[in-house]
Parts: sequence; structure tokens; C-alpha cells
Amino acid sequence: MSRHDGRNFNELREVKIEPNYLMHPEGSVLIQVGNTKVICTATIEDKVPGFLRGQGKGWITAEYSMLPRATAERTQRDASRGKINGRTMEIQRLIGRALRSIVDLEAIGEKTVWIDCDVIQADGGTRTASITGAFVALTQAISKIHAEKPYNKFPIIDYLAATSVGFIDVVGAVLDLDYIEDSKANVDMNLVMTGSGRFVEIQGTGEEATFSRNDLNELLDLGEKGISELIELQKEVLGDVANLVAMLSK
Amino acid sequence: MSRHDGRNFNELREVKIEPNYLMHPEGSVLIQVGNTKVICTATIEDKVPGFLRGQGKGWITAEYSMLPRATAERTQRDASRGKINGRTMEIQRLIGRALRSIVDLEAIGEKTVWIDCDVIQADGGTRTASITGAFVALTQAISKIHAEKPYNKFPIIDYLAATSVGFIDVVGAVLDLDYIEDSKANVDMNLVMTGSGRFVEIQGTGEEATFSRNDLNELLDLGEKGISELIELQKEVLGDVANLVAMLSK
Amino acid sequence: MSRHDGRNFNELREVKIEPNYLMHPEGSVLIQVGNTKVICTATIEDKVPGFLRGQGKGWITAEYSMLPRATAERTQRDASRGKINGRTMEIQRLIGRALRSIVDLEAIGEKTVWIDCDVIQADGGTRTASITGAFVALTQAISKIHAEKPYNKFPIIDYLAATSVGFIDVVGAVLDLDYIEDSKANVDMNLVMTGSGRFVEIQGTGEEATFSRNDLNELLDLGEKGISELIELQKEVLGDVANLVAMLSK
Amino acid sequence: MSRHDGRNFNELREVKIEPNYLMHPEGSVLIQVGNTKVICTATIEDKVPGFLRGQGKGWITAEYSMLPRATAERTQRDASRGKINGRTMEIQRLIGRALRSIVDLEAIGEKTVWIDCDVIQADGGTRTASITGAFVALTQAISKIHAEKPYNKFPIIDYLAATSVGFIDVVGAVLDLDYIEDSKANVDMNLVMTGSGRFVEIQGTGEEATFSRNDLNELLDLGEKGISELIELQKEVLGDVANLVAMLSK
Amino acid sequence: MSRHDGRNFNELREVKIEPNYLMHPEGSVLIQVGNTKVICTATIEDKVPGFLRGQGKGWITAEYSMLPRATAERTQRDASRGKINGRTMEIQRLIGRALRSIVDLEAIGEKTVWIDCDVIQADGGTRTASITGAFVALTQAISKIHAEKPYNKFPIIDYLAATSVGFIDVVGAVLDLDYIEDSKANVDMNLVMTGSGRFVEIQGTGEEATFSRNDLNELLDLGEKGISELIELQKEVLGDVANLVAMLSK
Amino acid sequence: MSRHDGRNFNELREVKIEPNYLMHPEGSVLIQVGNTKVICTATIEDKVPGFLRGQGKGWITAEYSMLPRATAERTQRDASRGKINGRTMEIQRLIGRALRSIVDLEAIGEKTVWIDCDVIQADGGTRTASITGAFVALTQAISKIHAEKPYNKFPIIDYLAATSVGFIDVVGAVLDLDYIEDSKANVDMNLVMTGSGRFVEIQGTGEEATFSRNDLNELLDLGEKGISELIELQKEVLGDVANLVAMLSK
Repeated sequence: MSRHDGRNFNELREVKIEPNYLMHPEGSVLIQVGNTKVICTATIEDKVPGFLRGQGKGWITAEYSMLPRATAERTQRDASRGKINGRTMEIQRLIGRALRSIVDLEAIGEKTVWIDCDVIQADGGTRTASITGAFVALTQAISKIHAEKPYNKFPIIDYLAATSVGFIDVVGAVLDLDYIEDSKANVDMNLVMTGSGRFVEIQGTGEEATFSRNDLNELLDLGEKGISELIELQKEVLGDVANLVAMLSK
Repeated sequence: MSRHDGRNFNELREVKIEPNYLMHPEGSVLIQVGNTKVICTATIEDKVPGFLRGQGKGWITAEYSMLPRATAERTQRDASRGKINGRTMEIQRLIGRALRSIVDLEAIGEKTVWIDCDVIQADGGTRTASITGAFVALTQAISKIHAEKPYNKFPIIDYLAATSVGFIDVVGAVLDLDYIEDSKANVDMNLVMTGSGRFVEIQGTGEEATFSRNDLNELLDLGEKGISELIELQKEVLGDVANLVAMLSK
Repeated sequence: MSRHDGRNFNELREVKIEPNYLMHPEGSVLIQVGNTKVICTATIEDKVPGFLRGQGKGWITAEYSMLPRATAERTQRDASRGKINGRTMEIQRLIGRALRSIVDLEAIGEKTVWIDCDVIQADGGTRTASITGAFVALTQAISKIHAEKPYNKFPIIDYLAATSVGFIDVVGAVLDLDYIEDSKANVDMNLVMTGSGRFVEIQGTGEEATFSRNDLNELLDLGEKGISELIELQKEVLGDVANLVAMLSK
Repeated sequence: MSRHDGRNFNELREVKIEPNYLMHPEGSVLIQVGNTKVICTATIEDKVPGFLRGQGKGWITAEYSMLPRATAERTQRDASRGKINGRTMEIQRLIGRALRSIVDLEAIGEKTVWIDCDVIQADGGTRTASITGAFVALTQAISKIHAEKPYNKFPIIDYLAATSVGFIDVVGAVLDLDYIEDSKANVDMNLVMTGSGRFVEIQGTGEEATFSRNDLNELLDLGEKGISELIELQKEVLGDVANLVAMLSK
Repeated sequence: MSRHDGRNFNELREVKIEPNYLMHPEGSVLIQVGNTKVICTATIEDKVPGFLRGQGKGWITAEYSMLPRATAERTQRDASRGKINGRTMEIQRLIGRALRSIVDLEAIGEKTVWIDCDVIQADGGTRTASITGAFVALTQAISKIHAEKPYNKFPIIDYLAATSVGFIDVVGAVLDLDYIEDSKANVDMNLVMTGSGRFVEIQGTGEEATFSRNDLNELLDLGEKGISELIELQKEVLGDVANLVAMLSK
Repeated sequence: MSRHDGRNFNELREVKIEPNYLMHPEGSVLIQVGNTKVICTATIEDKVPGFLRGQGKGWITAEYSMLPRATAERTQRDASRGKINGRTMEIQRLIGRALRSIVDLEAIGEKTVWIDCDVIQADGGTRTASITGAFVALTQAISKIHAEKPYNKFPIIDYLAATSVGFIDVVGAVLDLDYIEDSKANVDMNLVMTGSGRFVEIQGTGEEATFSRNDLNELLDLGEKGISELIELQKEVLGDVANLVAMLSK
């Protein structure tokens, strides 16, 4: 049984990453994964949160939001509701944590990198697209600083990308679920991995369902394939900058 | 003395309006006015606010926001601060009010049109670009409904566009201020006008300055010129739909 | 066709300004414009907001509120709703901006003047009454400081007052609209002007209506007349203090 | 040792109650107790809170607020802070509870009376002045309804007034503390009593101090005297309406 | 007529105080008054609120909360509603004020004691149980500091406990009301008293009812009896530490 | 290298579950996992959230909170901060999702089960203890309904428990991390599994670290062992009720 959009079970949607998308931020991309479109920016601020002050260490934090009409039905703005919803909180904590895993925070020094991921159009996989895009924006921002005043050690120590995998009735295990697939999946798993093939985050969830250890292994295999392809694309987009990471991740 | 970007005192920046920019909304555009870029969407909801219920009349309301890095310095999100700031409130009230002035709310019936203007990149004039773009998104959304089930009377009764004018030291009166001009202007005026050359809104402000009646007239002349050019562009972008408005605005 | 309360089209309501209305504030008035009653106070604080610190410059900021039963129907308090509504925000920004236009902020030094305008009874024109009254409270507060320790330059450089003008069906252009007139006006314009006859703020709005350039000129003529009368009254109320402004506004 | 303002230990400040102070509310007074000035209004709303719906019973609820410059130092507005502070909550709960004790809520029917007490100028005793003034506003509002469509039973069944008593070093027990006395009192007690001399509320507090049973009795004697004088004044102000309460409180 | 649970009119429910209930806080108890169970903790923080800074004086502040299912019906969490309700505010202000009355704040030095009272199970009298339990937690925390580095003067200068008294139809005046009694009481009074028999707080309320001076005296007699029994129990629980208070309260 | 508390790498802390801990809720336990103590309650409400209305299906939702002194340092209450923090949101979403996976929501009918997990004392693993305890509270609440009016199908279809696993320097992979271990772990994984050995949730995170596929497998083996032991304990605690689940999970 094939997928509704004709893709193979182990095939990513078409992915495009447009670097330097905005004029103001130190790093910015528009990432498109199929119809999902996210603007990711990286801002470098010259101070750290209170709990890190005076430790000579940097920090990376992320914020995530959707335009009200990124979705089929209009979503009320968090600002209008006066509070951030739980899903948004979960996603922005995930993005920040994932990026911190491949950055040497001591090398950054006492600076905070703000990652902003704003979903312009949503068709499933917005959090994983955000991570994949944010890695490029972050690397560009850090490399700009490096160009002006080289770090002793380039702070980004490995590549990082993310995708989703899941189980769909009849079809089985699939890679990179779009919205239609996501809304009928029994098991949904987000994977974040590095260029060296190690896990940063595994978030597998059976919503009103469960899965076996074998199911898990099948999903992990799919995810590894997808993420290695995403990292190839990141290298292309980054061009020469990619080498700064490559040299230091060995 | 010429302007910092070489424009004539009575010259708009380059304006582009990309219609149908997003897949989900009933109407959507990306409007670019120089380096200012705003995504405007129109969503039609099948109910009205409490104060209008049962009156057979529709409503138009607008929300406005900026991405954190639409600006040179990162701006904190309203959602993170837990409240909407005063400038945002002012702007979204202005956009809603302006659009309501050229719509026959009885003709719409008991529906609410939500206008969302999200600034992707800011370089001055975001509120006027929002109004100019939102008019196109609104007209597209209304014309889609009209195509499915024609209105007795097309609800949009005139064109609508907006621009800014102001006084800058040495240079004098100028049309369509960008951020650099805006931040050193003594007098700043936003004008919203219709296709038939009538005013909808005049908001002239001397921030720590004042202006004479002659100054005012000079600014209004400039604004009228700019708005008529913007409306020509809207007509081009709207194509056949433009006629629906044109016929009914007579 | 005459006005519902028998006034001439170009006639203000009866205006009274009671100075030193409260015992605690540095400056305070009760202003009555017809049945509209507003308590305006000026408080001088010995610091400035963050964005001005260290620049040797002062600041003026305003807050505006209505008692719940200032209006015919009880209005819910902002404090109970947990947020300030958009109309309130707009008005308090306008009041602050207007007063800053006639104050030499360098002359004030690193101080903030808080203006509080609390509407006790509302019958249209509360924002313009607030500005007219706040000017007197502000001038009193500044003159008290001047009496103790004279400024090199008296910081208030011109008079300031505000009124509304608008178009009403059948009646036509009128000055100083009360609530009944305001709620049926097609065009509503608030004007803030100085003692030397210059504009500080023009906010003209057609709510579900538009207006021509000729209409605009007619409204401006009316407004200029009303404001010059209000400024005469301010001078009377201020007595000797009025001269401090008069001498320095030349 | 006499009091700082020359009053006798058992003497109230001068009290004035100006009825029908505002044009819109069903009942409204300006009460002055020395320099303390409070506007009290009563609004009758044609529904009850959820927990009372369908029980044929009414409700009375109160809100209390101070203008920012009612006090010597400017107080930040609750609306600006985004929440109501604890002291305000305590006071508004007290006012509502006190008034409910002398009203037959069944007789009112399914209506809510909103009491708003807004302190224009504060010099100690604002909560007790609010109760004393609110009783008059409430009685006026209820009597207006009674005049249009007489109740079977007049819903207000007794008079109600409040005052404060306390202990001050050297001076001893005193009635009706002003701000200077209040801020140095060891024991502070608010009393709410009825026209028939019964207690509705006793709130006695030793802030960083304690008091004996004898002290308590001395304070209660003083309070009873003061409240009976306040009730005499209420009767005068209410005029004929006072008889409606008097007849029914027997 | 006897009470629904068979108690005498002047009889407390069974009271247990389990000291050192939690591993982390400096002081902590589980207090049980009949079925009412409250965890009280004392935390000592090395700074004071802004208004006390630099005065060499300490502060005591309290927070109070209920688990959602401490009650028969589930109560929504304050955190979910986004604000603290009025009853909670009133109670936590009472607890803090009561404890401050028996502490020498100068002796504490520039420290804040945070008292947290969390109701695990509610059956009436949660605020008075909180005060009685919090006194023990506070004394333990202070005595721990005293053991490490003795105070010149032990800061706790007297014992402190609280109970409720009230009038119930048919039964009459009763001590220590449980939930069933509380919900049908005409008059409800909370008393806070010291080991030396002095009042700290009297809060007597007739909710839709009133009470006479004789009624008041009857209630005070009952309360004094109950509180002296509670203080005996506190002394037992505190053991040797009790002497530190006893010696200094003379 | 052994663990700091002497446990084997694959050994749980001592676990106790005290059922029927509180008098009011339909289901309630105190669960202790070493020094971590959580009160879990289940409340059954007779309606469902808006998005489920009219579908004949139930819902399970969870709230999680910590007492301020559950932790070594006092944590500010969410209610005082006016918003729920991100960690809390994440945890309560996890608890709700996990419980929904082993409940037949159709069988419950249009009811909502509210799960409240309140941490009394925290020493690592509070979210997994919450899930393990909440399962027991939920099962008790459901079985009480079943006893009164038997379900056609018992709605709980499998057991459910949770634990944490992780990697610690020198020690290696360990089961059930306490706070000391948790704060120095490189990889931290929470596992939620059913009585039939299937996964409900895998949340593995490298905070500033990564892990290999082999590492993952080692952790999963440990987790499976721990969870099967927790489920044995749940069965003991549930007694006869356990059979209701057991029969239906086949």
C-alpha cells in the first residue's frame, strides 16, 4: 500500500533551505519541507541568563510560533490568549536542548544565542523542520563572528538534523510524515541526530496506542536514513562554512 | 538635498504584492514595500462578535505582529511578555477600522473577517504596507465566496491603500518613509485613502515637534499621489477581481 | 438644523478647570467639559525609564482610566479583566505624546512626569478633556519645582489644548461633540494644538465612512477656534504661572 | 495627651455625604471623612452569578480601587501590574459581605448590585468610609426601583456603617484614625455595625503587637459611639428614603 | 442539642502535629485537626523585600494553597486560572501577619522567613490549622539557626495558635467548627492568640447575619479555652525548643 | 564502580504505594519512590472538553505541581508567577497522554478523569513516580464506578508504569535515577510501558551530550526490568481490582 502523496515509505519530502533569508538577523533561513515552511533566525546577545552569569559559558534558547493561518483553521495567537500553550513550550524547549547538544558552550563565551522558529505554513513536521533549519541559521551566525574574530575552537562540534517517523494503518512504518499522515498515525516519533550518527533526542509516543521493541527498531532505521540525507543538504547549503564544523567534529 | 537612498521626495519605494502566498487562508499576500515585508491573510469565520449578534451584519477585525527579528534588534514576543503592547494595539485597531470603511458590512452577512498582518522584515511603514496588502487579501477572500455563491451586492465598495508622509530636516516633505527617515522625522503622518480619493484616516503626529496648516497641506498632496499609485498596483494584482470592486464603487 | 443641546455648530460646551483639586499630587485639576469630568494629576518621579538613563533628559508618560460608572452602562475594570484594553492604550499614548511636544525634555533633567487622567463622568470628549486638563496639572507641578529651585529655562515652551470636531448627519460640521453626537458622527477628529496655533496631533477617522479634503478643511477651521478658547481659559486658571510659559514660548 | 489634629479620643472627623454625585449610576455618593474622599456607586444588573442562578435570590458584590495619586506617593495601577493586590481583594470582599448582611437577598430577586468604591483622596479609613458611603448609594438605588415598582418587602432591613478604632502610643484608644494615626497604631480594628447596634464584622489586628480582652472592650465602646453618629448622618442624607429602612428594620 | 460528630460545644477536634515531616525544609510539620491536614514549612532566605532593605530587620511572609482534591469537589488550581483568588490572598496575609506579631524582627536580622501552608485535605478550619502548624515549623527553623550560631535574643517571643468559633442554629456557640458546621454557621470567628493569652487577630463575620456584644463575649471565652489547649500541644511537640520561647516570653 | 547510595545498577529504589490516601477523591494514593513522594488523585467529572462533546467518548487530563519546599531550594509557586512553567506543562501533558494509552475512552463514556499529581517531596523521578501512582488512583476511581454500575467493558485495558534510566560517568547505565544521579547524568531517558511489555512513551535526551544505538538498547533493557517490577507492586496494591484489568488486557 503506497502513501497518499505517492512517496516511498523511506522517502523524505522535497527539502529546500534558503540561507540569508532576512536582512537583519545574524543568521536566517527559510526551510521548506514539502509544504511546511519555517523561518529560522539566530540572534547573538551579549549576555547570559542569571543562572549562568560569571561562568564563562554561553547559552542557546529557542522560541517557536506559528502564524495564525499557518494552519487550515485559524489558530488564536498566544499573545491574544495571554499565555503560551503547552505544545509550543514543549517544542521550544526541544529545539533549544537539541542545538545545545552540538555546541561547545564554553567556546561561545558569555553570550546567548536566541533561535526563533516561525512557522509560515504548516503541513506536519514543523518542529523537526525547525531544528534542521535552525542548525543552519545558528551555524551562519556563529561563522560570521568567527570571520570577524576567530574562535580558538569553532563552537559547533557536529551537524544536527531532525525528522519524524511513525506507523500508519495499512501502510506501516514511514519516514517524514506530512499532516495527513501525522493525524492518523498510531505511533509518532521525533528523532534528532548528529552528523556522526548519534542520538540527541528520541521522543516516541503512542497516542491512545502502544508499540513493541521491534517496531521501535524499524522506526529508528528509517529515521537514521532520513537524517543523513538532511545533513547532506545542510552541508551543501552551508558551503565553505560546512568545513568549519566538519574539521572540528572529527 | 536628496534622500539617503536616492529617491525623489515624491517617490514610493518599489512595491510588490504576491497574491495567494499561502496554501491555507482564503486570501493571502506577501507585500514588499522596499525592504519591508508583510504577510497578510484573510480568514472568514462563520460568526460575529457578541455585540453584533442577530443584526444581520458582518465584522472585520485585524491582528498585527512582528517576527522577533523583523527588526535590527531582536524584539521580545508579546506572547513571552504575556501582553500585547500599546503600539501593536493601535496598529491592529487602525487596520480593522480602515478596512471596515470600504466594506458594506450588511452585504457580508453575519460573518467575521479576520485579517492577520505578520511583519517578516521591517524597514519603516509596516502599518501602511499592512493595510495596502490586507486590502488585496480581503478582496481575494471575498471574491472566492462570491465565485461560489454570488452576493447580491459585492461587499467591497472601494479600493483602499495607505502610505506615510513626513518632514525630515534639510530634505523637507517626503513620501513613503523608510526606517532611517522615519527615525529622524519631525512630523510623521499615516494616510489611508480610497480609490475615489477620499480620506479614511489621517494620523499626523509631531513627536516632540509641531507643524503648521501649510505643512499639513504639503504632506496631504504627497500622500494622495502615493496612494493613487498603490491603488493602480492593487488593480493589476487583483486582475479580473478588480472589476468587481470597480463596478460597485461607482 | 441645530444641535440637540441648542449649541451653535462652532460652540464649545461650558468648560471649568478647578486647580489644586487634590491634596497629595504636585499638580492636580478637576476639568469639566459639559458633563464630562476628569481628574488630572501630575507626579514628578526622580528617575527616567531605562531607554533614557544617563542622557540628561526627562520623560513624560500618561495613564488614563475611567471609573466603572463614568459611563451609562457599567464598564468592567481593566484590573478585573487583567489587561488594559486597546482604546485605553491608544488614549494614554496620545496624552503622553501630546504633552511631550510642548516640553523641553532636556530642561526637565532626568525626571519622569507621570500624568494620570481618571474619568469620573463621561459624556464624550474624555481624551481631549484629559489633554487640556493635564496641561494645567503639568504646568502647576513644574512651576512648583521652579519656585523652589528655578530652572535656567522654564521647561514648558508653549500652551497645549485639545478638542474634537466631526460631521453629523443633517447638522454638518460641529465643534466639541458630546456623547450623543459622537455616537452618530460619520467622521470624528481629535485635534491637539499649541498656543501658537500649530498642530501637535491630528487624528481623523471615518468609522465605516470617508471624507473629502474640503471636509477636512472645514473641520480644521472649527478646531482651531475651539482650541484658542480653551487656551484662554487655561491662562486664566494658571494666573501668574501662565506668564512663565508665555515668556518662554516666544 | 491629645491627638495630633486636636480631636478628642472619641471624636469622628468631619463627615460629609453628597448624594447623587454622578449622572449615570442608579445610586452614587461622594463621602468625605476628614480628608478621605471616596466615590461610591451602586449599579443594578439584571442577572446573578452562576452559583445563584435559578434560586430567586439576588447578590451584592463590591469593587474597590484607589486613584494612583489618592496617596502621598503615587501607587501603580492594578491594571498596569496586571493583577489585583491582596489588600484590595480583602477590602472589596469586606464591603460586599458587610452590605449583604443588611439586605434581604430574596427580596431583591435575581439581580446583582455592583458597588464600586473609588478612593479619590486617601487619609486613613478608606475601607470604612467606603462601607458607610456605599450603604447610602445602595439604598438610593434600591429606593429608585421601589419607586417605580414597589417591593413587597423593602430589601434593606437595617442601617449599616463602619469606622476604625485603635491604640496609639501615649494617646491610648482612639476613634476614627487618620493616616498619621493609622501608621503608628499598635492595634487597628475595623468595625461594621447595624442601626440596631449589632456587629456585622470585627477585624482587629495587632501588626507586630498584641492586645488584651480589656483593650478589646475599650475599643468596642468607642466604635459603637462612632457608628451610631454615622448612622444619624446617613438618615439625614437619605431623607424620606430613610423611613423605608426604618419601618422595615423594626 | 449536641454536635453532629458528638463533640461537646467547647471541645476541639483531635489534633496531631508531626514535626520534621519533610527532608528539605528548615522547618516542616504535618498538622491534623480532625480530618483537616496541612503541610506547613518554613524556609529561611538570606534577603529581605525591597521596602526593608538596609534596616537590619527581618520579614515573615506566608503562602497558602490547597491541593485540588483537598475538597469534596475538585477546585481549579490558581496556576491554571492564572491568578490567586481573594480568599487565598486573605488567608496568606493573615498567616504572615499573625506570625510577625510574636517574632522580634530585629533579632532575626535581614532575612525573610517564607511560610508555606499547603492543605492536603480540608474539613474546615484550614487557616487556623495553618497558623497553629506554621508556628511550630517556624520555631524549628529558627531554633536550627540558633543551634548553629546562637542569637543574642531568641527571636520568637511568645507562643501562637489559632482556632475558630461560631454560632450554629439550635446548637449555639461552638469551638473549632468542621466543614459541616462552618457551612451552616451564622457567625464565624477566627481567633489568633498568644501563649500569654493576648489577642493577635479577631476576625468575626456575620455572613448575611449579625451578632450582639454578648454573643461576641461567649465566642471569645470558647476561643481562649481552645487556644490554650493548642499551645499545650505545641509545647509538647517542640520539646526542649519550647523552653527557648518560654524563657524569652517572660 | 557502585552507585552513591549502594544500589545495584539495575535496582529500583524502595517503592511504596499507599492507596485511599485522602478522604475526598474517588481515587488517591501516596506513592514513595525512595525519598520522592507524590500524592496522586483521580477525579471523575461528568462532562468532556469542547472538542469531544457529543462523540460518546471520554477524556483523561493531568495536572502536576510541586510544593514550594518539595525541593532543596524553595521554588516559587506557578500561581505567584502567574503562569505555568514549561517543565510543568511538559510533565502534565506526558502524564495525561500515557494514561490515555491504556484506557478505552469509548468505554468511559462522556466523562473526564482529572489526574492531579502533587509532589510533596522531590528526589528525582517525580514524573515517572506520578505516572506509576496515577495509574493506581485512576484504576481505583474507575473500579468504584464499576462497582456501582458495571461497565460492559472495563475501561482500563492494561497496566502502566514508568521509570527513568540514564548514563552516569564512571558508573555507566543505571535504573531509577535519584536527584544526585539525575543532575550529573549525560543521558536521561524516561520510559512508560504497559503490563504486556509494550512502549507507550520513550523520551531520551542528551543534554549537552549524545548517545549511540547500542547505548539506547542497554537503557531499554534496564527500563523493561524496572517497569515489570513496578507493575507487580501495582497489582499487589490493587488487590482484587487488579483482576479487572488483568482479565481484560488479554
